Amino acid sequence: MSQSLLFTPGPLSTSLTVKQAMLKDMGSRDHAFMEAVKEIREGLLRLAHAPKEEGYECVIIQGSGTFGVESVISSVLGENDRLLILANGAYGERIVKMAKIHKLDHEILRFEEDAITSPDEVANYLAQHTAITHVACIHSETTTGLFNPVGEIGEICKKYNKVFIVDAMSSFGGVTMDMVAMNIDFLISSSNKCIEGVPGFAFALCKKKELEKAKGQARSLSLDLYDQWAGLEANGQFRFTPPTLSLMAFRQAMQELQEEGGIAAREARYKANKKILDEGMHQMGFRQYLEPEIQGHIITSFLYPSSPDFKFERFYEKLNQRGFVIYPGKLSKADAFRIGNIGQIFPDDVRALLKAIAEVLHEEGIAV
Amino acid sequence: MSQSLLFTPGPLSTSLTVKQAMLKDMGSRDHAFMEAVKEIREGLLRLAHAPKEEGYECVIIQGSGTFGVESVISSVLGENDRLLILANGAYGERIVKMAKIHKLDHEILRFEEDAITSPDEVANYLAQHTAITHVACIHSETTTGLFNPVGEIGEICKKYNKVFIVDAMSSFGGVTMDMVAMNIDFLISSSNKCIEGVPGFAFALCKKKELEKAKGQARSLSLDLYDQWAGLEANGQFRFTPPTLSLMAFRQAMQELQEEGGIAAREARYKANKKILDEGMHQMGFRQYLEPEIQGHIITSFLYPSSPDFKFERFYEKLNQRGFVIYPGKLSKADAFRIGNIGQIFPDDVRALLKAIAEVLHEEGIAV
Repeated sequence: MSQSLLFTPGPLSTSLTVKQAMLKDMGSRDHAFMEAVKEIREGLLRLAHAPKEEGYECVIIQGSGTFGVESVISSVLGENDRLLILANGAYGERIVKMAKIHKLDHEILRFEEDAITSPDEVANYLAQHTAITHVACIHSETTTGLFNPVGEIGEICKKYNKVFIVDAMSSFGGVTMDMVAMNIDFLISSSNKCIEGVPGFAFALCKKKELEKAKGQARSLSLDLYDQWAGLEANGQFRFTPPTLSLMAFRQAMQELQEEGGIAAREARYKANKKILDEGMHQMGFRQYLEPEIQGHIITSFLYPSSPDFKFERFYEKLNQRGFVIYPGKLSKADAFRIGNIGQIFPDDVRALLKAIAEVLHEEGIAV
Repeated sequence: MSQSLLFTPGPLSTSLTVKQAMLKDMGSRDHAFMEAVKEIREGLLRLAHAPKEEGYECVIIQGSGTFGVESVISSVLGENDRLLILANGAYGERIVKMAKIHKLDHEILRFEEDAITSPDEVANYLAQHTAITHVACIHSETTTGLFNPVGEIGEICKKYNKVFIVDAMSSFGGVTMDMVAMNIDFLISSSNKCIEGVPGFAFALCKKKELEKAKGQARSLSLDLYDQWAGLEANGQFRFTPPTLSLMAFRQAMQELQEEGGIAAREARYKANKKILDEGMHQMGFRQYLEPEIQGHIITSFLYPSSPDFKFERFYEKLNQRGFVIYPGKLSKADAFRIGNIGQIFPDDVRALLKAIAEVLHEEGIAV
């Protein structure tokens, strides 16, 4: 089978050995499987520097990353709580949608798509709006590729005594994060991001003290964060059928992350990929949407070439034929496409992509 | 890797070729993947004899089967609707839980765990309770293994003009079902049941006319049945990351179902498995929980041997060591364990299981 390389925000290119871990059927109530789930849950907490002994818990939620975010948002806000949503892209807006559907008391502090969430403005806002109990923020906004300053926002949440919820979907595992030091109460990510597993589930790393408050508060059965946790704790089993093979692949992916040298080594590889991508695209004349200071090292938005002959669908398809899958844009204010540099992507893969982009531009006669 | 055989209600034993279909990474917005999703959606409708041209639609929902059931239950009931839940086991009660959490107007008609839902009683109930708009029923109640008479109940729903929702989780693909003839408006099942795929998603087969009424009615973002459908229809893509590889495995599983001879052939194999299991267990002295007339051919509840020396955990573990995974019981009134005969299980596998059971009983000195 020919294998394309995925320069996307996920599902990503994963190692063959990760996928091969799915070649054995597993019973969902069997000891070997439950042992794997336990390993995964403990390992994820260690990766966030938030071990069980220090009062943190890991809950795995079937479905996509959004299911994990909705599980947290729709479980941890009580009747008398009020959520501040920090939004500067589509994923912040997705939390707004959740708050509306679940009729949560909420306020929204919006920033431009090409600007980070300003810690100063958050501090001012919290000083003035004292009814707020919870703050939600996206770490790596995949809409553009920027990194919001969750460390600084966490400090502010600590100062004002707010529960801090971070959607670290596309960054966790590819960026060193310390939940305790960053004062994060709930951190959500998914199986098919920087841990480099396959899709199938999300996970929420939770401060136990806050998680316990969610008991009986959920607004759905499937996405009940507390009950899901209580079920896993009671007998090591999921309440409802888990994606057994995605979990086995994930355990293998976590082992491979360790073998690579942990998150620090992975972050270094992603940054190396990003540097090569930036330089190569710059040489071809492409411009990035974001200022470099706020750009993360997960995914980058490149503006369309000014040439009217550039047709994204054609560009995408021709790269695809060469075995490189890139990603369409999602900006509200500009035409752009996105290139991710996470997953089993190495500097030589990025160089091969750059060569293919140059070829396609040449074939199509497009000046950037 | 040694591979146990799973005599469970799912996740099941699947073919190696189904699992091997997961060895290639797929981009979730890529054409090849979207084509596979289209094939799956159309193929599932054909299996239910409810093609798109006759006004039926297939919606795929990330997560477990319960996520699919909750997506339907929490999306299709409007403000002025009233649901009748027919319950004779844990899966009927699970729908009751959903109705409560979502504060749906609902009534419950309960039957004993060892009795089927009586069509006559349903007809009487509907005649007397005219505010009811929707009826929900489990086809194969995995709690015990009985089959509720959904065909007859469908006729009654047609007579009284009720929307009929069938949870056919553990039976669809292993029992010939005609949604149109059976007057089923919503039928839900999952990837890891009788189609013999791996876990990762549920699917709902929907009468389009009823599905369209669900617009704007959902009680969550992730489980919004209408929006999920509208997204798939708009551009062939999922709103949120799909379990790409589970879907690729499922496409392969659907091809293998065709190669086996379709649902009729699969049903015949499952029935052959069940006959061998019944005879062998009977010879050893085991008694079944249900009367044979109401027992389905998916999974069977066997009562514990009367010997006080019988310890289920030990029995389970010893079978496990021999490569056979059976399933604990879930009855409220009796001690039983369950043996499924679905998945990639063939008559010789059932004979091997029976031999192992006889060995373990002998080793443990247990008289049944």
